[in-house]
Amino acid sequence: MRKNSKAAIIDAAIFLFNTKGFNGTSIRDIAAKADVNAANISYYFQNKNGLLENCFTVFFESYLEELEKGFSLLECGAEICMKAMVDNVLRYQCENTQLTRFILREMTIDSQVVREIMSTYHVKERYLFKKVLEYGMETGEFKKLSVPFSILQLKGLLSMPFLNTHYVTEVLHILPHERYFAEKYSSEISQWIKGTLCIDQHQEKMLIII
Amino acid sequence: MRKNSKAAIIDAAIFLFNTKGFNGTSIRDIAAKADVNAANISYYFQNKNGLLENCFTVFFESYLEELEKGFSLLECGAEICMKAMVDNVLRYQCENTQLTRFILREMTIDSQVVREIMSTYHVKERYLFKKVLEYGMETGEFKKLSVPFSILQLKGLLSMPFLNTHYVTEVLHILPHERYFAEKYSSEISQWIKGTLCIDQHQEKMLIII
Repeated sequence: MRKNSKAAIIDAAIFLFNTKGFNGTSIRDIAAKADVNAANISYYFQNKNGLLENCFTVFFESYLEELEKGFSLLECGAEICMKAMVDNVLRYQCENTQLTRFILREMTIDSQVVREIMSTYHVKERYLFKKVLEYGMETGEFKKLSVPFSILQLKGLLSMPFLNTHYVTEVLHILPHERYFAEKYSSEISQWIKGTLCIDQHQEKMLIII
Repeated sequence: MRKNSKAAIIDAAIFLFNTKGFNGTSIRDIAAKADVNAANISYYFQNKNGLLENCFTVFFESYLEELEKGFSLLECGAEICMKAMVDNVLRYQCENTQLTRFILREMTIDSQVVREIMSTYHVKERYLFKKVLEYGMETGEFKKLSVPFSILQLKGLLSMPFLNTHYVTEVLHILPHERYFAEKYSSEISQWIKGTLCIDQHQEKMLIII
């Protein structure tokens, strides 16, 4: 049994789930693609559902770690903190486009696994974003905005290029797997943070004068 | 044969595709749900793929019509025009949440139908958005921005609540099928248009002075 066969199984599974769909992929397909014995897959993951749950856990554990790394900068200010969270998430998603695409797509359906993920990871994620938004409103960096609607917008911006890889490459000719993309898109979301969340500096001055 | 059986078949199909998935739904299921004879479905749509293509066409024909209605206001200014396009699309999507969710989800996979839709409807949509953005940059209403990246952001904002209905209702407690939603979310995207696309009015004054 090769040392890295677990990783090879996961890579093969993600590739096949993305191309043939979860239901259209068999354990045998995954074993052939990963060049391992089918018994190895049972050993590590029991069955295809176990493998699916593992993909979710692998993705969201790292995803939340990236968010928390950014969140730790909250004392430096809400805008800096929010930018760091966005940068970290985008970099992570760009480094794992195949996994990200698969997970984001699975999250759009209503299943038991998805509900469990929501009630743990997504609730945690909402908590972190909410803290930053509220902190920014308290310190006067951010406008008084609806927290859920701001999170809704931010999540839409963060997921769009990864969920709609095909549209993005074929119609807009943007390549999310290329190196410059994370940097470029991150500066786009910075503009959103500045324009939508942050208090206009002129307005701020006016408030100080008044 | 009832007069409205075609509409009943489409409604039943969308409901079942969203709950059981396209592959998990049979013509017999659709016939039972729509309370029609299975032969009716063959008569109208030939087979399940014909029904799928019909759903795409129904959605995108109306979607583009709404975009074009907004686009016709271009002479009133780029910001007004962009807002009208967003309002129309959001209202249409709110009135058809089930269909919108199904179509947006199908568009995330790579299939022959999806590629055809992209090369017709999405290319047309990109053309319209591009015209408005370029017009706004020419007249000095909008900042000099990357057209594809601006469309990417806008598309992310427009699709998020419909594609991730479950996340939006369960985690953020926002209900996209409720009447107030289209209005509220439309004013959120207006903020994005103002903050991200439009030239800051103070900056504009500065430019005039210089």
